Amino acid sequence: MARQPEFEHSKKAFGWAARDSSGVLSPFNFSRREICEKDVALRVLYCGICHSDLHKAKNEWGTTNYPLVPGHEIVGIVTEVGSKVKKFKVGDRVGVGCLVDSCHSCQNCVDNLENYCPQLTLTDGSKYSDGTSTHGGFSDSMVSDEHFVFRIPDQLPLDAAAPLLCAGITVYSPLRHFGLDKPDMNIGVVGLGGLGHMAVKFAKAFGANVTVISTSPKKEKEALEHLRADSFLISRDPKQMKAATATLDGIIDTVSADHPLLPLIGLLKSHGKLVMVGAPEKPLELPVFPLLAGRKIVAGSLIGGIKETQEMIDFAAEHNVKPDIEIIPIDYVNTAMERLLKADVKYRFVIDIGNTLKSSS
Amino acid sequence: MARQPEFEHSKKAFGWAARDSSGVLSPFNFSRREICEKDVALRVLYCGICHSDLHKAKNEWGTTNYPLVPGHEIVGIVTEVGSKVKKFKVGDRVGVGCLVDSCHSCQNCVDNLENYCPQLTLTDGSKYSDGTSTHGGFSDSMVSDEHFVFRIPDQLPLDAAAPLLCAGITVYSPLRHFGLDKPDMNIGVVGLGGLGHMAVKFAKAFGANVTVISTSPKKEKEALEHLRADSFLISRDPKQMKAATATLDGIIDTVSADHPLLPLIGLLKSHGKLVMVGAPEKPLELPVFPLLAGRKIVAGSLIGGIKETQEMIDFAAEHNVKPDIEIIPIDYVNTAMERLLKADVKYRFVIDIGNTLKSSS
Repeated sequence: MARQPEFEHSKKAFGWAARDSSGVLSPFNFSRREICEKDVALRVLYCGICHSDLHKAKNEWGTTNYPLVPGHEIVGIVTEVGSKVKKFKVGDRVGVGCLVDSCHSCQNCVDNLENYCPQLTLTDGSKYSDGTSTHGGFSDSMVSDEHFVFRIPDQLPLDAAAPLLCAGITVYSPLRHFGLDKPDMNIGVVGLGGLGHMAVKFAKAFGANVTVISTSPKKEKEALEHLRADSFLISRDPKQMKAATATLDGIIDTVSADHPLLPLIGLLKSHGKLVMVGAPEKPLELPVFPLLAGRKIVAGSLIGGIKETQEMIDFAAEHNVKPDIEIIPIDYVNTAMERLLKADVKYRFVIDIGNTLKSSS
Repeated sequence: MARQPEFEHSKKAFGWAARDSSGVLSPFNFSRREICEKDVALRVLYCGICHSDLHKAKNEWGTTNYPLVPGHEIVGIVTEVGSKVKKFKVGDRVGVGCLVDSCHSCQNCVDNLENYCPQLTLTDGSKYSDGTSTHGGFSDSMVSDEHFVFRIPDQLPLDAAAPLLCAGITVYSPLRHFGLDKPDMNIGVVGLGGLGHMAVKFAKAFGANVTVISTSPKKEKEALEHLRADSFLISRDPKQMKAATATLDGIIDTVSADHPLLPLIGLLKSHGKLVMVGAPEKPLELPVFPLLAGRKIVAGSLIGGIKETQEMIDFAAEHNVKPDIEIIPIDYVNTAMERLLKADVKYRFVIDIGNTLKSSS
């Protein structure tokens, strides 16, 4: 039988965990491994809350092993490095994102696309190759092989850097990979949440004209004035959508709810690309003839590779691309989860782990 | 009111036309324009029968103007050229495919992608810019601007060249455009009809390992022995499909009937491409997470541009890629249409216009 989380490894750790499908988080004592020669240990200072934390905490994907310490938008300060660590030293500002391991030998790993490795190990709620559990960043400490650790440049505040590690790379990667990163392109962004607002910011930083597409008219002011999008379309307004037919080079679709693709495909120019980064539970309806008639593409994209994630962080630092965040103390996390469910956040909760997570033991 | 087809233009023409949604074809007198300075006139010798001829003849897309002379896989011999024609002379072996005009000024036209020009003029059942009707190749003669006329190399028999002009380019173009033309790639072909058998032949000519995917076990022998595909999968056999998970770089899906995409997406490696060239009437179910998890693409592709079509014809001549055809006389055309509906042809009917179409007038 597996050992208790507190004694699985030799180093004490403390965090908040979900224990069952209520998804309610509460204080949790567990343990982390002693560092190996290529490991970096960090004191966690901030951790973002991603919508997938909510899904996992409530076991909505049916894959959760409890207890679950969520969190994969982790930033902090290096406290210890293994003897063969080359990239980091104690005191460095660093981050850990969605992955803590991969096979290192498949074609995707060779191509710096560890995120598509069939044997990838997720940062939270997954298993290391030795069978022990991974625990995420809603905790005081983190250990990872240095390959999966990112450097956070001094220009980037640590709290705002956190959401880059999942929300940021999830939209940056497809913009780059699918060639939607050229100046003066017309780029659409569907949905204005954690991912959507980052897509607007990165597309603007690439020099695009950005159109936000939303079901909610009340987001127009926010999109245009605060996020500096160039235009706004209400997806349920056929007149507006028709007037914008064949105007976009690409669309990043961040919506996880069921929604029609036909109006979005109609917005694309010939050879345009609709990239899904949200994961609707049920299949969507795909009209085929509109794809044929313009040689259009519907694609999916999932986070990003390690090299590309560091490139994204450096780009964000250089171009002052920062998520909009609401900093919360750890004991607000269950309320934050409820608000996230209602999309009541602009645009990402970040837990101030360093100042508010206190072990009672 | 529009003039009668027989008197619309000054040159007499004769063909077979559908008059109503029964789709039944019968002899039909009409007319063609005098050649303009950039026009080429040809005596039609052969014309392929495409599945879309059937749809149009029966007005299944709701867009047919009767009387309709179908046919857009047209080959013949040049009989007359305009004063400014540069590429052709009387006696040349030539073909006309799906298009006879486009706007010549949009970005797609500039990029040699006339097939995606929003103002393209189809060879049959469409309207020229002067409002007169286009009539296809189930007829004794044809007139077209030389830009839309192809040279048929001497190595290619004229009868077998005909189906290249629609079926051939429809599968060649996406194999090229989506980078599915590299030696040793693993390419899947779904459906083994007019388009599918050409996809197998072109993919083999590019050096690919070709897997035919079909609902019909009885096609296995034909696929492997006659078409020299490398493997065969029955799409309804979960065991076979599972064993082939993540093995294909790309798939050309030629099926127009409703069919599940999930098993096909599962056959793709990471970053694999599923290209639809058939046009199912109703939307298909698109499962999104499987796209995300491997950064996969579902795309559409529609025939090909004029430059690329000539390139395809030359490639076919050089590599001896020839459609399998059944030559029929014109008075068999209605029976052929019925057999086509039952997929009872290997793999393309070609009408011997030159020897069998005789005007009674």
